[in-house]
Amino acid sequence: MATIKDVARLSGVSVATVSRVINNSPKASQASRDAVFKAMAELKYHPNANARALAHQSAETLGLVVADVSDPFFGTMVKAVEQVAQNTGNFLLISNGYHDAKKERQAIEQLIRHRCAGLVVHAKMLPDEELAQLMGHIPGMVIINRTVPGFENRCIALDDRYGSWLATRHLIQEGHKKIGFLCSNHLISDAEERLDGYVQALQEHGIEVDERLISRGGPNEEGGEEAMTELLGRGRNFTAVVCYNDSMAAGALSVLSDNGIEVPQDISLVGFDDVLIARYLRPKLTTIRYPVSAMATQAAELALALAHQDEEPDVEMPEITNMFSPTLVRRHSVRNLP
Amino acid sequence: MATIKDVARLSGVSVATVSRVINNSPKASQASRDAVFKAMAELKYHPNANARALAHQSAETLGLVVADVSDPFFGTMVKAVEQVAQNTGNFLLISNGYHDAKKERQAIEQLIRHRCAGLVVHAKMLPDEELAQLMGHIPGMVIINRTVPGFENRCIALDDRYGSWLATRHLIQEGHKKIGFLCSNHLISDAEERLDGYVQALQEHGIEVDERLISRGGPNEEGGEEAMTELLGRGRNFTAVVCYNDSMAAGALSVLSDNGIEVPQDISLVGFDDVLIARYLRPKLTTIRYPVSAMATQAAELALALAHQDEEPDVEMPEITNMFSPTLVRRHSVRNLP
Repeated sequence: MATIKDVARLSGVSVATVSRVINNSPKASQASRDAVFKAMAELKYHPNANARALAHQSAETLGLVVADVSDPFFGTMVKAVEQVAQNTGNFLLISNGYHDAKKERQAIEQLIRHRCAGLVVHAKMLPDEELAQLMGHIPGMVIINRTVPGFENRCIALDDRYGSWLATRHLIQEGHKKIGFLCSNHLISDAEERLDGYVQALQEHGIEVDERLISRGGPNEEGGEEAMTELLGRGRNFTAVVCYNDSMAAGALSVLSDNGIEVPQDISLVGFDDVLIARYLRPKLTTIRYPVSAMATQAAELALALAHQDEEPDVEMPEITNMFSPTLVRRHSVRNLP
Repeated sequence: MATIKDVARLSGVSVATVSRVINNSPKASQASRDAVFKAMAELKYHPNANARALAHQSAETLGLVVADVSDPFFGTMVKAVEQVAQNTGNFLLISNGYHDAKKERQAIEQLIRHRCAGLVVHAKMLPDEELAQLMGHIPGMVIINRTVPGFENRCIALDDRYGSWLATRHLIQEGHKKIGFLCSNHLISDAEERLDGYVQALQEHGIEVDERLISRGGPNEEGGEEAMTELLGRGRNFTAVVCYNDSMAAGALSVLSDNGIEVPQDISLVGFDDVLIARYLRPKLTTIRYPVSAMATQAAELALALAHQDEEPDVEMPEITNMFSPTLVRRHSVRNLP
């Protein structure tokens, strides 16, 4: 296997210069850069990222914990963070926490052990105290989709309550009074806050909250099918339904259609998140836009800046919005009730 | 910061035992394992994965290159590989190649530099020779969705041609003769092979291939909208369309519906891949099942076994299917023409 000395010999520069080129030092000239990269390619020399990481105390790696990469919502998050990593010459390490405290802890531990320079963490099950302790130890750790008390400026979250309040108020303004809610059965704050927003909007408009109009399922298509099936089973005394997310709305739509119930003619439906599927359902889904891409971009930039700040105190910090607001996207799944 | 000596002292075992526990050696007893993990947690000691990697020549890391994690097809692939990593105590590193030769090369290089023990690579743009050369150097490298000559036993692919042949034959058997094809505009083998299968099925049944019934777009919802718009623009002289994948079919369905053309009453549609969205479109999409989860699981198991074999020659190799066959999934987007 080729060594750094072989590269130096072939490219006609010193070992120190090869090292500068590999480590992206501004002291290396373009000419030596070209010569070294050419020699590295010819010799198939791969600088050892691990050795370099030990020397630098932080590898050029950005860590990301999401609940589940195969969920399109998190797919969008991964893509945004990956873009930041790529633009800054960093590399992305991803791990899934599956909304499970033990797995969230393992995921964070693994990323720390791989010495990620920055860390963007979506962890909903770990207690605030544990996250606060970790953030105290790891300067480049940023939380997404949650606010950890004491570390508000390193958290980027969405006002979930306002989102479902918006969805519910929209239905009320369109004349609906019997409004159901399909809630996620994951015991995470998002679920409770979205439920709260629904309850609050009803109460503000003098509509009584009916527990029989609230049902739960997994935050995916199958969960939406189950929750809607249960709601229909309790009797069809509603004209509209707010869903925890677009995937549940897709499942609900499927059950309604299988039962000959038309959306929006018979039942109006509002989703949440505005993932791609919302635009390809029939009817196109009215939903609440979750600006996950912008949020993830900011979180990644903040994590990297914080990690660098730890080494270079006067690094410039990016401008961050700590609490994002959702917006209503009107499509074709809500009907005006005369 | 706590050191391995601090952990040994607090847990009342030797440094060598701590090291054994950290490295999952079978020689460490359960009692010392418990004591060491307790001490590590108390001291917030994180074994340095990089240092360990240098000692072992391979980190406990499995690398995966996909085209784009935010595409649901690749989301499924990531999830399957992650499951294998998790079950075997390994950790997953992911990178995107975006069907771009330079980015595919960078992604593989980065994973090699991070000393991944096993490597599962979806790379469609790099030439066979370059992949063959890399595979010659990296014993734990496995290719998914492609067959590299000379390394067939380390490749896991799908018979794409047969898949679209099946889709097209199904339409012919249902009485269709004017059949369009929405093809991906990515210059990858999948696109050409799926187009070939369509052409072959038509020819076998004595139906002339009409170039005006073939249009191209990106392999996603928007690309499907574009390709279907173009096809309609050329005149509506077709009764059925085979799509490169389900995402393109979703886009096509959207354009047809916007133009008052009903599926399957007016136009029959067949997708490819059987991703989740296929079951939530209206009508539910008839499609070709791509067993990506099973394929990715086998690829990950093979990569890890090959990586271990390099160190321990008598490691047991998993049973692998090198060429998977797609199957037809009949739902409700195809109509029988009398």
